[in-house]
Amino acid sequence: MNNITRGLIIGRMQPIHKGHCQVILKTLEEVDELIIGVGSAQISHTLKDPFTAGERILMIKKFLVENNVDPLRYYIIPMEDKDINAIWVAHVNMMTPPFNVVYSGNPLVQRLFIENNYTVKAPPLYSRETLSGREIRRRMINDEDWQSLVPKSTVEIIEEIDGISRIRHLTKKEKNEI
Amino acid sequence: MNNITRGLIIGRMQPIHKGHCQVILKTLEEVDELIIGVGSAQISHTLKDPFTAGERILMIKKFLVENNVDPLRYYIIPMEDKDINAIWVAHVNMMTPPFNVVYSGNPLVQRLFIENNYTVKAPPLYSRETLSGREIRRRMINDEDWQSLVPKSTVEIIEEIDGISRIRHLTKKEKNEI
Amino acid sequence: MNNITRGLIIGRMQPIHKGHCQVILKTLEEVDELIIGVGSAQISHTLKDPFTAGERILMIKKFLVENNVDPLRYYIIPMEDKDINAIWVAHVNMMTPPFNVVYSGNPLVQRLFIENNYTVKAPPLYSRETLSGREIRRRMINDEDWQSLVPKSTVEIIEEIDGISRIRHLTKKEKNEI
Amino acid sequence: MNNITRGLIIGRMQPIHKGHCQVILKTLEEVDELIIGVGSAQISHTLKDPFTAGERILMIKKFLVENNVDPLRYYIIPMEDKDINAIWVAHVNMMTPPFNVVYSGNPLVQRLFIENNYTVKAPPLYSRETLSGREIRRRMINDEDWQSLVPKSTVEIIEEIDGISRIRHLTKKEKNEI
Amino acid sequence: MNNITRGLIIGRMQPIHKGHCQVILKTLEEVDELIIGVGSAQISHTLKDPFTAGERILMIKKFLVENNVDPLRYYIIPMEDKDINAIWVAHVNMMTPPFNVVYSGNPLVQRLFIENNYTVKAPPLYSRETLSGREIRRRMINDEDWQSLVPKSTVEIIEEIDGISRIRHLTKKEKNEI
Amino acid sequence: MNNITRGLIIGRMQPIHKGHCQVILKTLEEVDELIIGVGSAQISHTLKDPFTAGERILMIKKFLVENNVDPLRYYIIPMEDKDINAIWVAHVNMMTPPFNVVYSGNPLVQRLFIENNYTVKAPPLYSRETLSGREIRRRMINDEDWQSLVPKSTVEIIEEIDGISRIRHLTKKEKNEI
Repeated sequence: MNNITRGLIIGRMQPIHKGHCQVILKTLEEVDELIIGVGSAQISHTLKDPFTAGERILMIKKFLVENNVDPLRYYIIPMEDKDINAIWVAHVNMMTPPFNVVYSGNPLVQRLFIENNYTVKAPPLYSRETLSGREIRRRMINDEDWQSLVPKSTVEIIEEIDGISRIRHLTKKEKNEI
Repeated sequence: MNNITRGLIIGRMQPIHKGHCQVILKTLEEVDELIIGVGSAQISHTLKDPFTAGERILMIKKFLVENNVDPLRYYIIPMEDKDINAIWVAHVNMMTPPFNVVYSGNPLVQRLFIENNYTVKAPPLYSRETLSGREIRRRMINDEDWQSLVPKSTVEIIEEIDGISRIRHLTKKEKNEI
Repeated sequence: MNNITRGLIIGRMQPIHKGHCQVILKTLEEVDELIIGVGSAQISHTLKDPFTAGERILMIKKFLVENNVDPLRYYIIPMEDKDINAIWVAHVNMMTPPFNVVYSGNPLVQRLFIENNYTVKAPPLYSRETLSGREIRRRMINDEDWQSLVPKSTVEIIEEIDGISRIRHLTKKEKNEI
Repeated sequence: MNNITRGLIIGRMQPIHKGHCQVILKTLEEVDELIIGVGSAQISHTLKDPFTAGERILMIKKFLVENNVDPLRYYIIPMEDKDINAIWVAHVNMMTPPFNVVYSGNPLVQRLFIENNYTVKAPPLYSRETLSGREIRRRMINDEDWQSLVPKSTVEIIEEIDGISRIRHLTKKEKNEI
Repeated sequence: MNNITRGLIIGRMQPIHKGHCQVILKTLEEVDELIIGVGSAQISHTLKDPFTAGERILMIKKFLVENNVDPLRYYIIPMEDKDINAIWVAHVNMMTPPFNVVYSGNPLVQRLFIENNYTVKAPPLYSRETLSGREIRRRMINDEDWQSLVPKSTVEIIEEIDGISRIRHLTKKEKNEI
Repeated sequence: MNNITRGLIIGRMQPIHKGHCQVILKTLEEVDELIIGVGSAQISHTLKDPFTAGERILMIKKFLVENNVDPLRYYIIPMEDKDINAIWVAHVNMMTPPFNVVYSGNPLVQRLFIENNYTVKAPPLYSRETLSGREIRRRMINDEDWQSLVPKSTVEIIEEIDGISRIRHLTKKEKNEI
């Protein structure tokens, strides 16, 4: 890898929010290039994971361009969950450019990469209490202010794809199901 | 589709009961043809889903013939769950004749079909409190009257396949497992 | 199974033709009930397998109703291929009502059912030279008479789903592909 | 099978412990040959299932050789879970030499084999309260004596693969995850 | 989609070559944004498909940045093959931002998108005879000039990942295989 | 791994023959322990792969015991093919005890293990012309002497499982298939 540092960071980003943004920008100060994995790529249309991988890729890309991040310095790649822990690192490797450092606070992710001889670091800190996907989705459902917690372009994308309508529909109580 | 209305209705039918029967007969009054999807087709031999897809297809077919429903007017099709919500409508489409209206009270099913531009309607009402698969399975286990809640032919099929023995076996407490 | 004979017969039926029809009607003379498996259910949109499982189910159902076959006497069930021969019989069993005789001229299908202790019989004869899916698809592509080889209702269904347009599109030579 | 009795017994063995050992040795007194299935073979790196199939095979093999069990009398075979109950017996069959008796205390396993016409027996008793994988894993995490509950060779293997470090890592609280 | 045109173009790019480059740059003149799908993403380490999805993403990204393409205008997304044609469009949709025109010269791809009501266009022309992945891979194996047929950055990446060594190894004749 | 050499060798062994036997015994002279992978474990009931994984495990085990190989020195493990080359090494790793040298003459297997930093060696030579699975299966079909090419215990196993009848059945010409 020619003496460059290429990092990997993975998040579900349901949706991307200002906490993710801080972490990504901060991590970009530490590495030459950053692979941003869009986790649980195959999951969508649930209360916990309302947006598709493609919609989340759109959000992340627009945010990075908005912030004038040099396009040479990032890769945005959808990552499907694999049920089998022991092959997951190989799956990630196949889907990404070669990397040499992994940023993760998740013990399973850490352990799997450590056992495959990767350097694992903790991602930069941000205030997780006020900034979380769960809180943002709660506000979307309850018609409270979620817009201030995500990038401006993300607000536009969620409107464009009618995302609020989707997440509210999914909260309806089932009735009369056969 | 030559100006006919072909509806889709999906249920696990573990087992089919008189509530399902009411809904199917009622829906048949609204549409020209009805596709009856046997949901979670790949699941069987659990307390929640004791019967195989094939056993459930047998129950539904016997009920419809018993009631002299014109065979031109229905299709009974097993539908395996797909873990990926965003491809499920395409999977259903592949397995069924073309249809133009979906009957469902399940918000996820509704949403997925709405986003694929289908007309979605609520299925006809029936009394869900007294008629439910859960209640019937509970009675089967506890040797209470479940027979009165399902079609007569379904009682015969469950006897033929030794279904009560199966569901009771599954309630046993595990012991001495290695 | 209460002393009834329930048979299983499986075909890809791409599309159903008068040979299939003869075999089905003939086999119905030998058994009380017949399960008609729609093979390779997950395959469609190829020159060899142009039609979806749902489209083929529609063709078979209309043919049987046209011929006034008692609806109590047949089941039409899509069967996906499983790559693993040793589990295929179990998969078929799960998806179908219980059966006790298998009609197949395919040595692999015969062997798998024989090793699972089923009675296997050869399906009734018909003239395979003039009646074959391959010949019908060839005629569809070359604008020759295919209509006389399939049931009348099948002609209507293929028109309704624009099937000729589909199969001809698939014969185009690829060009300018990136 | 030439008049021999070949048994099947399946356990997750996370890790193998002295209770498993008693059951295996006891069962070997009843059968000519024993197939030892390593259950949930595809699962590893979780608090409930920390060890890979290969690591567990190593533990079982070393234990059997340590105890001078005649190598002609056992087979150790990894068994992946299959989500579909109705095909699981066929999957087990494919992966194992032919067998004619199943030892299991698990009602689902019992039922599936019974419906496939196998003889099912309860495995020999052992004291499950003091000997359980859960208790051993708890002790590993809390640095209490787990070594006395497993075979000596298993202690060595877990040290060799750095197993305690793995299971403790997995208990860490996630923090700063993006 | 706010009146923008977002196109989709899919290629295996094993490896990316100057023909792909022409097509991508030309298509970018017709659309506002372009999704570049890396086809057969799960295939690698064969003579026909030597490079992993991640390696191919790296090649495409470097080429686009080298050519100063505005990063807002493209998305590079790996696309695994799905064996089931009838669900493939839904899979692509899930993995990508919303798009409204598909560029493809492949009849199956065209047909699947047409049946899902997409606008399908032929991709721009380039000289396929002299520029093809097959020819480039042949030259790599035979130590002829392949470098002039791909972007400069691609040459560097293939050196960095030792790609020539990989493809030549795969041409070796198998011997002494057990 | 405590200074021991543990090798891996993989073969389909359809069926095991005296060439495999030579290679296994010879390799056991070079390593402390040997993992014998039963390749394409999920494939059976075809002319090329007539026997199930379990049947092949039985053949290998009986051969090794017949030859008084120390049971501590080998592991026989079924290995399913994975369609995705880039994750196959991780899958093998999960299913086996840790190993440090791979014996293979297959260029793809060699390359995949080399890229994962394993030592790869060529397996010992044997006369492949007269000893091959293909030749043995041909003789089985044509009622020529195949017995002299395989271990004595393998002859007995193939008789016990009625293997000749199976392979001959699979050569029948399909007829009267619907």
